[in-house]
Amino acid sequence: MERPRHQGMPKNTNMRWRLPLVCLLWELAMIVLFGVFVRFGAEADAHWEEEKREMNLTSDIENDFYFRYPSFQDVHVMIFVGFGFLMTFLKRYGFGAVGFNFLLAAFGIQWALLMQGWFHSFKDGKILIGVENLINADFCVGSVCIAFGAILGKTSPIQLLVLTLFQVTLFSVNEYILLNLLHVKDAGGSMTIHTFGAYFGLTVTRVLYRPNLEQSKDKQGSVYHSDLFAMIGTLYLWMYWPSFNSAISDHGDAQHRSAINTYCSLAACVLTTMAFSSMLQKKGKLDMVHIQNATLAGGVAVGTSAEMMLTPYGSLIVGSISGIVSTVGYVYFTPFLESRLHIQDTCGIHNLHAMPGLIGGIVGAITAAAATEDVYGKEGFIKAFDFTGVYRTRTPSIQGGFQAAGIVVSLLMAFAGGAIVGGILKLPIWGDAAAENCFEDGVYWEV
Amino acid sequence: MERPRHQGMPKNTNMRWRLPLVCLLWELAMIVLFGVFVRFGAEADAHWEEEKREMNLTSDIENDFYFRYPSFQDVHVMIFVGFGFLMTFLKRYGFGAVGFNFLLAAFGIQWALLMQGWFHSFKDGKILIGVENLINADFCVGSVCIAFGAILGKTSPIQLLVLTLFQVTLFSVNEYILLNLLHVKDAGGSMTIHTFGAYFGLTVTRVLYRPNLEQSKDKQGSVYHSDLFAMIGTLYLWMYWPSFNSAISDHGDAQHRSAINTYCSLAACVLTTMAFSSMLQKKGKLDMVHIQNATLAGGVAVGTSAEMMLTPYGSLIVGSISGIVSTVGYVYFTPFLESRLHIQDTCGIHNLHAMPGLIGGIVGAITAAAATEDVYGKEGFIKAFDFTGVYRTRTPSIQGGFQAAGIVVSLLMAFAGGAIVGGILKLPIWGDAAAENCFEDGVYWEV
Amino acid sequence: MERPRHQGMPKNTNMRWRLPLVCLLWELAMIVLFGVFVRFGAEADAHWEEEKREMNLTSDIENDFYFRYPSFQDVHVMIFVGFGFLMTFLKRYGFGAVGFNFLLAAFGIQWALLMQGWFHSFKDGKILIGVENLINADFCVGSVCIAFGAILGKTSPIQLLVLTLFQVTLFSVNEYILLNLLHVKDAGGSMTIHTFGAYFGLTVTRVLYRPNLEQSKDKQGSVYHSDLFAMIGTLYLWMYWPSFNSAISDHGDAQHRSAINTYCSLAACVLTTMAFSSMLQKKGKLDMVHIQNATLAGGVAVGTSAEMMLTPYGSLIVGSISGIVSTVGYVYFTPFLESRLHIQDTCGIHNLHAMPGLIGGIVGAITAAAATEDVYGKEGFIKAFDFTGVYRTRTPSIQGGFQAAGIVVSLLMAFAGGAIVGGILKLPIWGDAAAENCFEDGVYWEV
Repeated sequence: MERPRHQGMPKNTNMRWRLPLVCLLWELAMIVLFGVFVRFGAEADAHWEEEKREMNLTSDIENDFYFRYPSFQDVHVMIFVGFGFLMTFLKRYGFGAVGFNFLLAAFGIQWALLMQGWFHSFKDGKILIGVENLINADFCVGSVCIAFGAILGKTSPIQLLVLTLFQVTLFSVNEYILLNLLHVKDAGGSMTIHTFGAYFGLTVTRVLYRPNLEQSKDKQGSVYHSDLFAMIGTLYLWMYWPSFNSAISDHGDAQHRSAINTYCSLAACVLTTMAFSSMLQKKGKLDMVHIQNATLAGGVAVGTSAEMMLTPYGSLIVGSISGIVSTVGYVYFTPFLESRLHIQDTCGIHNLHAMPGLIGGIVGAITAAAATEDVYGKEGFIKAFDFTGVYRTRTPSIQGGFQAAGIVVSLLMAFAGGAIVGGILKLPIWGDAAAENCFEDGVYWEV
Repeated sequence: MERPRHQGMPKNTNMRWRLPLVCLLWELAMIVLFGVFVRFGAEADAHWEEEKREMNLTSDIENDFYFRYPSFQDVHVMIFVGFGFLMTFLKRYGFGAVGFNFLLAAFGIQWALLMQGWFHSFKDGKILIGVENLINADFCVGSVCIAFGAILGKTSPIQLLVLTLFQVTLFSVNEYILLNLLHVKDAGGSMTIHTFGAYFGLTVTRVLYRPNLEQSKDKQGSVYHSDLFAMIGTLYLWMYWPSFNSAISDHGDAQHRSAINTYCSLAACVLTTMAFSSMLQKKGKLDMVHIQNATLAGGVAVGTSAEMMLTPYGSLIVGSISGIVSTVGYVYFTPFLESRLHIQDTCGIHNLHAMPGLIGGIVGAITAAAATEDVYGKEGFIKAFDFTGVYRTRTPSIQGGFQAAGIVVSLLMAFAGGAIVGGILKLPIWGDAAAENCFEDGVYWEV
Repeated sequence: MERPRHQGMPKNTNMRWRLPLVCLLWELAMIVLFGVFVRFGAEADAHWEEEKREMNLTSDIENDFYFRYPSFQDVHVMIFVGFGFLMTFLKRYGFGAVGFNFLLAAFGIQWALLMQGWFHSFKDGKILIGVENLINADFCVGSVCIAFGAILGKTSPIQLLVLTLFQVTLFSVNEYILLNLLHVKDAGGSMTIHTFGAYFGLTVTRVLYRPNLEQSKDKQGSVYHSDLFAMIGTLYLWMYWPSFNSAISDHGDAQHRSAINTYCSLAACVLTTMAFSSMLQKKGKLDMVHIQNATLAGGVAVGTSAEMMLTPYGSLIVGSISGIVSTVGYVYFTPFLESRLHIQDTCGIHNLHAMPGLIGGIVGAITAAAATEDVYGKEGFIKAFDFTGVYRTRTPSIQGGFQAAGIVVSLLMAFAGGAIVGGILKLPIWGDAAAENCFEDGVYWEV
């Protein structure tokens, strides 16, 4: 199976020592770093009884666990089942899709707890973690799962672990710049997760361009049941996206509002996706690729603005547009990117995450710039944009400008980071398969 | 594939302009109507801080979001994965089952937010929505998913959208009559969702009777893996049904009680279904059709009474009976309905929703009529049946009578509405397939 | 299909009267016993309004329903979809895996509500149930699902129901001894659920040893799509395990902490599993059996200690070790157990539940013995181990000793109980299939 037909030298895809070595050494590093740095936050620590008294809380239900744990579990399902199964559409790469996604996400959440912890939860030399850290770690890994979509079927598990190591690091830096330095709002991660993750992945796959990939073209399609497996992923992403966009919003109205906006946007997106999927095909038949992917663009595109007063009809508009853009992207842009720009994007993340992510950033900037005390209420206005402390005097239009700057920073980080990481992954030591063995589980799995 | 073998004229199933037109125009209508009418309710609005003070709430955890969001997400899974995958049992109609269910539900929840909003959440010219509205919209669409089960494989996506438009409208009218005019309790929707939805669907499929359907008989069965996909739908419906029946019950004991009653009823239902599935087959073998469907009848049959003091053993009795009725229905009634009454019921919704829905309505009427202040407590009695204001003097037996009236009204609405909508769907403009192409994804999907 | 090829006498696997009889009689018994004993607990009873005043609660959100219902639903999914689909890996036993798991769990939760109710929720002659009872019933049945894994494909549905009846009974006795008599902590059930369930199942399968099982060897493997179905089970178990281990912990910090520890342990476990799966195979390829199972060992192994101050890095260590032990078990121990000890363990529960369960018990004992007031805080220390009343004077090291005693008791109960129940199941009246018809749905299902 691994015998090359057109290339001079067979590739060594045997993972026997390389993969175990990387996994075990890195896990050991995690243990040491967790041992030095990570402790329970106040709400998960056994000292909570005393903490409660100090914070004047009368009930255990005030523990952040009860505000966020249900959303956390939904996000968790999106990362592992959602992304994992969405990528099982390939007829002979189901094990790799689900299994490698499992591997990289399991490593990534540990490393993200550390990286994000150093930036956001560091106190007296320790990272103090609670349920919100778990959600943020899942979010960070979500951006890696997105990038995985571009290189699906063409990389070895070691390459994916290396990618994860670097991408989580860069994600955390970018997130810190946006949230802390620019004071940008991005609760659902249109910029930090989707725009960054997608353009990072697209840059990586550009660097890893395989000129002979048509050799495995017969394996790049789906079969009937693999499309149904993929629909499991699609639906879990679609259904739980309201939890994704609301998971780390402020308690109360902000979480509530984020869920409603996302619900509306996604519903509208399904209709415009179906419309364009049928319209762009001569016989008017629907294409499962569009249904599996473009229906989700509405969740991406309200990621920044869902917790703002976007309003339900605003959400319908954003969802409708993003469904159209995404479907058109699958039909016209993906072939163009491959043939002209040499960007081989297995899952079409450019259509599902990159463009809708940009839309999401722009919509967020506009919605922020249009905010008024009238619409939000005096207190709500300050709370929604956290206009306190040094940001006390920031106006909506300035906030809108910073939001826009967040898009640009995310893009720059993605292009620069992707180029460097792509270069590292190009080294001939990671055990990736030859072009004719891509999209084939038999290379890395007992089948 | 679309070449007719036995009929004179080939049918035009090309959706290229019709489907996009309907999807885009209707989505546009949604945007306009949402723009005019829909706003965030107080608990999702940025003015919540002020609202909290007015309502004398000390904590964000009192926001309805935290009482209902986990249940909402479970219901959401039931509608999209539960119903969607339950219908994938057909060997060549998996895309249609999951995909069309996705389409109609995504449109339906938008239209339901409006219809139900005008009836129940209308204030000063605006519909104010919160998480409870999202649940109710999902519920309303649940009744359309049920009706879809009767006509699965025989209708075009446009017909399904037309069906959804009308059924959501009629559902909302019927719900208004029951809940507001008759002051009936039906938190889990035995009457409003199941009885109405099922008899509506059965009437529609009767009107759409296809005399030559045996031409696609070979495609009406399942294959091994399609039955496993369907079990995903079954199990999610079964597991989350306690959330369904408790999702919009009163905060506190009522939600708690609904979940327990439903859990018990469903557990009992599995045993009687297995018993009768084996007993009614000569070789005593179990039939996946029964396991996939009749095991759920227990959830339907306690829909009305779950929030009442039905008691756990009462739930076991109701669940046991409904499992038996439903399984017997699959073995004896479904063939009878088809051969004698010309009702072609693809998924057997008569067995899973219609009969158990009637049982549920009757059990609800009896449980209400049997209520006493002793069992409920003085305050609990008033709260459970909302015997306040003009209903202050209503007695349990009168309530029981109104509950029974609710069943009759739901049936009449279903028959009348189904006849009219069936007639509309019979028009030769909607692009449905010829009899020999039914139950075949190739008609509307790229395969 | 049921014609024996090598044995003298054909086995009668016709369930037509036996299975219905058992199901219906037992369900009737449940109805009678529930009628006599089971009532709603205070938080699910309509008298809750009065109860709230008495307990001085100001809000419905204090109802235990809101603390535990989301976790309950996650556990529910683990039992029915998690265990059910995990076992669908066999190429021709998917119906039996999902369907029989459904049957035994649906019966088991009813019987567990009674058995556990008599021991733990009995007041004035009644068992008062609430959401915590539902979780505990699911937990109890979880131990039966584990045992089912050892005998998967080799037993009739009646045998499984008999097994469930006895195992639930013994589980409840063992749980009572541990939790009430030994005052042992075991919130995630490393001892009560996993150690007990696994060694019980292994003993049963030893007693039921089938010398000619190689006759159905061709059916003992998986096919490509059955492995993907199994991954659905794996991922749901993996994702929701934090809910499993935290579901019945004390409100507040304990639930929060359990979830974090479990999340960390499971993440680490994935990496060491992947490492050893690749390392122990000549070509370095990954084995789906390991990925499907050993990745979960981390959840089992922190079952006892997750709610303690195990700390995140402690969890990483435990998870890492258990992944290694479990994977090594699949490669070396399972073949050894079969060939030398005549223990035919279809799903390898020895590797996934038995050994990690023992690790979990030991880690729990050590963590308890190492507890200090410094780490837990004065109040937290007492609360975490419930050192009140007669246990006021118990020290951590004594607690550690009792924890260790809990492991021994669970093992003894499992061996003794498994031997007796195995003997009962050996009677030739239960309709199990001949060796050459094992692992074959056609025996008990219409295919």
